[in-house]
Amino acid sequence: MKPIKVGLLGLGTVGTGVVRIVEGHQEDLQSQTGSAIEIAKVLVSNKSKARDISIDASKLTEDPWEIIHHPDIDVIVEVMGGIEQTKQYIIEALSRGKHVVTANKDLMALHGPEILAVAQEHGCDVLYEASVAGGIPIIRTLIEGFSSDRITKIMGIVNGTTNYILTKMSQEGASYSDVLKEAQALGYAEADPTSDVEGLDAARKMTILATLGFRANVALDDVSVQGISSVSREDIQYAKRLGYELKLLGIAERQDDEFSISVQPTMVKQTHPIASVNGVFNAVYVHGEAVGETMFYGPGAGGMPTATSIVADLVAVVKNLKLGVNGKQGIMTYKEKKLKTDEQISSKYFLLLHVADRAGVLARITQVFADFEVSLESVLQQPNPVNPEAEIIVITHDANKAAMQKVLQTFEELDVIRKVKSVYRVEG
Amino acid sequence: MKPIKVGLLGLGTVGTGVVRIVEGHQEDLQSQTGSAIEIAKVLVSNKSKARDISIDASKLTEDPWEIIHHPDIDVIVEVMGGIEQTKQYIIEALSRGKHVVTANKDLMALHGPEILAVAQEHGCDVLYEASVAGGIPIIRTLIEGFSSDRITKIMGIVNGTTNYILTKMSQEGASYSDVLKEAQALGYAEADPTSDVEGLDAARKMTILATLGFRANVALDDVSVQGISSVSREDIQYAKRLGYELKLLGIAERQDDEFSISVQPTMVKQTHPIASVNGVFNAVYVHGEAVGETMFYGPGAGGMPTATSIVADLVAVVKNLKLGVNGKQGIMTYKEKKLKTDEQISSKYFLLLHVADRAGVLARITQVFADFEVSLESVLQQPNPVNPEAEIIVITHDANKAAMQKVLQTFEELDVIRKVKSVYRVEG
Repeated sequence: MKPIKVGLLGLGTVGTGVVRIVEGHQEDLQSQTGSAIEIAKVLVSNKSKARDISIDASKLTEDPWEIIHHPDIDVIVEVMGGIEQTKQYIIEALSRGKHVVTANKDLMALHGPEILAVAQEHGCDVLYEASVAGGIPIIRTLIEGFSSDRITKIMGIVNGTTNYILTKMSQEGASYSDVLKEAQALGYAEADPTSDVEGLDAARKMTILATLGFRANVALDDVSVQGISSVSREDIQYAKRLGYELKLLGIAERQDDEFSISVQPTMVKQTHPIASVNGVFNAVYVHGEAVGETMFYGPGAGGMPTATSIVADLVAVVKNLKLGVNGKQGIMTYKEKKLKTDEQISSKYFLLLHVADRAGVLARITQVFADFEVSLESVLQQPNPVNPEAEIIVITHDANKAAMQKVLQTFEELDVIRKVKSVYRVEG
Repeated sequence: MKPIKVGLLGLGTVGTGVVRIVEGHQEDLQSQTGSAIEIAKVLVSNKSKARDISIDASKLTEDPWEIIHHPDIDVIVEVMGGIEQTKQYIIEALSRGKHVVTANKDLMALHGPEILAVAQEHGCDVLYEASVAGGIPIIRTLIEGFSSDRITKIMGIVNGTTNYILTKMSQEGASYSDVLKEAQALGYAEADPTSDVEGLDAARKMTILATLGFRANVALDDVSVQGISSVSREDIQYAKRLGYELKLLGIAERQDDEFSISVQPTMVKQTHPIASVNGVFNAVYVHGEAVGETMFYGPGAGGMPTATSIVADLVAVVKNLKLGVNGKQGIMTYKEKKLKTDEQISSKYFLLLHVADRAGVLARITQVFADFEVSLESVLQQPNPVNPEAEIIVITHDANKAAMQKVLQTFEELDVIRKVKSVYRVEG
């Protein structure tokens, strides 16, 4: 079989990793696929920039169309990022019969169904293992490994930046702002960290995972999102004292055929396997009706881990080319999307309240929970170490989201409550 | 497409799980594959036995050949176990063009290459995801997820029985024999537990994983095996005090193109992700040159988890049938097998020695390590709590296996050493 020619869009950390793996593991790739794989053209923003790897200058171009319209290129590997313009490149490449491997979670979360439809129309593969959880082959696992099962829950630590921040806050008792600065200095957080710390990056990844796990086209707007920027070190210390770790979890849950998807800081029982996933590592916990509890752990980002997933997708495209079965993955989303209402979404909650330190306060507060039929697992009242008021810590039994919202609304009008300091979902 | 007809060999816990999933998830399976999947015939040892599931009596047979020679059956699912006779059935089924899905680790570890060769000759699939680590899709992960990478290390807790025993001994300070009895009563250990507790079951699974990870045909004889039957509760308590957990680990390691495979009780640093895998759960830790550290966790046995893997394989066979690409997985083992010599196999070791309590003993012992160029990470001498002698605990730096064997031989002749109480490999 003739060499497969790859057009690479982007030569940053991940693109460089792709070149390194394709060149360094050429013999292995050829043994597995029966074809040589050649990086034929690479899109860069500046051809004369100094680079970490030696690459033939004639392969570099600053013109994307030179790659997308190149008659000899079989596969486009997209690691440049961006949404609208990148989508245009990919759609055009597919319409010319080129297969696409992408690491672009933003693109797949926002335009996945449209891109996959164009691919199918032209008999092309679009593979995107690298778009979620870097080096962990979680997309393959959901599509193939659990094809036989009904996934009931996916919980993911799918953002390394926020997990690094929360781990440092937990292990060193540091403040959010101090750790964020450190993460920025180390290159684990961007200069503008909004997308990571406000949960948007995780929400995009959960959109992709929920779509595959529940086999219905989930949209980014279906995900309720809360970030970690208001998490205090006190919250984390309380969590630890009660036997929990605070993690930014993406949670997709299904009961019968109705589901909900959210991203929020969550108190996870320390005995749960996902509680001990620390630093920039990612993990995806998957519960299936038949299989039960599983978890997949690994590096969530980084040039080489992400490139591992991209080149594995490239191998799959080349194997499909050899067998003539590209674009025939079968239907992956065939279920109707039915989202749960707030009345149907149920979980345990942790609340930390600052209250007036006088008789009858606890009775007033617990009555509010009772009024909305939220039952309590544990209640602790203690003096606030700083102010002349008391603290009340409550962990509820499973309560529905709508009832909890009513409890919180009522608390706002209750004069004995000085402040609802924190409210977190509880898992495990 | 016409319904795909499955012949099921065996209707124990796993076979029953297969029937439950195929019937219960029929609509999902059909949406994914485009075909109905029907359990057409089932081999049982006694047709009139009472069963947990209702199954049409006309589907049951006590004659394996009725299934293997059945002209309408497309796929054989083998969950009966056994080796020589089962192999005969499978080879015969393949030679008649039937695809095979099997959970049989013994068969695949001993005769995998031969069976896969027959399958290829007849254009048939043989899939065996369920043969290792029950519900964890680790075989797919090694073949597809990491097709792009060079695996350098696989460490597996791949036997639930021994992990249950070691977890109980660690958490409750119980003795090996007491926990074994309890495990037998709960059905986690067989009446004759030899295959599990002596490491043979784990060795068979590691043969399969190493073959896929290193892409060379590893044989069971290539695995050096030591079980857990001589592990004492003292060993486990020492391990914990030093910050380790004692686990039965399968370890397959590669440097350049030479590798070694072993199964042995191993002291794993408590901070290593595999150290906290407890009870009957399984986990496989995979290190790749490019991807770095990953781990895959889930139920290692049980009817429904194992059936999840089997039916996922069945879905893959049906998708291949639809595309006409069965038996074309590509070459999975193309590397020459080069095993490391004992001089090349290197790890850290823990030793617990009972020694005479007199001057100069520690000097004599440390000199032996020095003579064979084994350097030491830490040494602790303390009075033995029971006998009028001293205990010496040594943790070495990386030492080669041949040198350690010479150290241990020399210790046998050293009069100041009363007993080499324990020797364990150390990881993490």
